[in-house]
Amino acid sequence: MFQKILVPFDGSSNAEAALKKAVELADLTGGEVLILTVYRHHSMLEASFSMVRPSDPGNMDDIMRTHAREVADHGKKVAQDLGAGKVRAFVKAGQPARTIVAWAAEKDVDLIVLSSRGMGSIEGYLLGSVSHKVTALAKCPVMVF
Amino acid sequence: MFQKILVPFDGSSNAEAALKKAVELADLTGGEVLILTVYRHHSMLEASFSMVRPSDPGNMDDIMRTHAREVADHGKKVAQDLGAGKVRAFVKAGQPARTIVAWAAEKDVDLIVLSSRGMGSIEGYLLGSVSHKVTALAKCPVMVF
Repeated sequence: MFQKILVPFDGSSNAEAALKKAVELADLTGGEVLILTVYRHHSMLEASFSMVRPSDPGNMDDIMRTHAREVADHGKKVAQDLGAGKVRAFVKAGQPARTIVAWAAEKDVDLIVLSSRGMGSIEGYLLGSVSHKVTALAKCPVMVF
Repeated sequence: MFQKILVPFDGSSNAEAALKKAVELADLTGGEVLILTVYRHHSMLEASFSMVRPSDPGNMDDIMRTHAREVADHGKKVAQDLGAGKVRAFVKAGQPARTIVAWAAEKDVDLIVLSSRGMGSIEGYLLGSVSHKVTALAKCPVMVF
């Protein structure tokens, strides 16, 4: 049970609390912790809504990906400091909930552990919408904190 | 971790699947499984909406409580058949999500395990509303299937 535990990680303290629970659970089950940091594509459509148009939107995607990588690697270090034996960190671009659910299915994870607060966006913070969507859409069990 | 695991149980096959996971988890943590079957009060207000007025609404509450007790006891037997060491079954009247959350706080449970489908009412079946409300309101982690 729970050999592959996915923790969507945005670097928030709530995400760290969820990660801590996932590490404890993986320790019990002998499972692996997979950390996933999702970042949004910077689309031309979004850019067109801005007051200032970026001269190089491709570069903004690079910046966001690099930042996501740092967040994911930080999560990995936190998990290792908590005593996680098996842990890997990944980044992926896309809409948070759908990306998490699709990635979980692709990697055949047994459990998703996430916080109902602090998954990046303000909408998520206010409504817990990311955790709600993940819970509704995921094919595997979801543990919400 | 997870010494007191609450499983809201309505007798559905989805609730049994959640119960199975809870028993496995309790086996790992050495924890106890608490089964809770919630039934709705038959209020005079509801009775006034009916075509046929019951002569004895108090008796209807008795019938609902007795049925809930049977469902809860069935859950307990299922858990024991699955190998649960420590398991107790309870019934409580009220609105499902709020009753589950309040009872979880009162009993100081560490984790609520429930299905996103099949918690009794049609609204819950269609929208997963019970699991969504429990996830949003609970002070403890919630595992949703």
